[in-house]
Amino acid sequence: MNTQPIQNYYPDELSYCYGCGRLNEHGHQIKSYWQGEETVARYMPKDYHIAIPGYVYGGLIASLIDCHGTGTAALASYKAEEREPDTLPAFRFVTASLQVDFLKPTPLGVELELRGKIVELKGRKVISEITVSANNEICARGKVVAVQMPENFMNQDK
Amino acid sequence: MNTQPIQNYYPDELSYCYGCGRLNEHGHQIKSYWQGEETVARYMPKDYHIAIPGYVYGGLIASLIDCHGTGTAALASYKAEEREPDTLPAFRFVTASLQVDFLKPTPLGVELELRGKIVELKGRKVISEITVSANNEICARGKVVAVQMPENFMNQDK
Repeated sequence: MNTQPIQNYYPDELSYCYGCGRLNEHGHQIKSYWQGEETVARYMPKDYHIAIPGYVYGGLIASLIDCHGTGTAALASYKAEEREPDTLPAFRFVTASLQVDFLKPTPLGVELELRGKIVELKGRKVISEITVSANNEICARGKVVAVQMPENFMNQDK
Repeated sequence: MNTQPIQNYYPDELSYCYGCGRLNEHGHQIKSYWQGEETVARYMPKDYHIAIPGYVYGGLIASLIDCHGTGTAALASYKAEEREPDTLPAFRFVTASLQVDFLKPTPLGVELELRGKIVELKGRKVISEITVSANNEICARGKVVAVQMPENFMNQDK
């Protein structure tokens, strides 16, 4: 199985996402890849990503879940078609809805680990569940409904 | 009615939130205030807050909803007690859960308007519904369950 980050294969014109675009120099540039049956991404929050002192800002956690959810959707879609991510047509998803439950305060200063599982893959829609852990403890849990980007979005940027 | 932003009254030690802390120089510094029966906040996304070119990053939208939801919760709590926000004890909320539905792509380059309505205020929990509009069109809709910050969080930072 290809264990390279899916974001490395996004077309250049769709690689400026603040959360996961490899070409957005201001953004988080998260990378989502397979590890067994789960998808994984890691992110080290900046020291200013705080909610209250010592804890990670919930909006950042929601952002990471969002992007890892769309990355997970793309990874799952290639896998379902038994295609490598460098083959065409490219899969690129946007978020239709996002649910985040903040289970406990997330400590700042440690790398966060996101793990994704596919709940449903049907047509152009992929639903995934994502956990966010710090020090091997799950601090937040999310659900992302991702839909394949409309063709006209992809075409207009080419 | 006091129409000043609630974030102006947060205690200094709880004013470093990346989304709404007035003392976080890297953050969004959003301001939530009453306008009639609704709460309002405005934010102009930066040009690098993109999802795909021309549209606002969903993680930013989720972040703004999150912070405006906790601000709305604090505003509603003072109102329920018929207290001004410069009176003690201070109300400061954290997010327990966040739901965001992205209804249509949000254009980049215009100021976003968030509007909040109280759905439920019960004990230490406040539920609000938040819309995000661009050019007077609702692009995203969120629901925030906010809970009053535990006393030990507030005490340990004093």
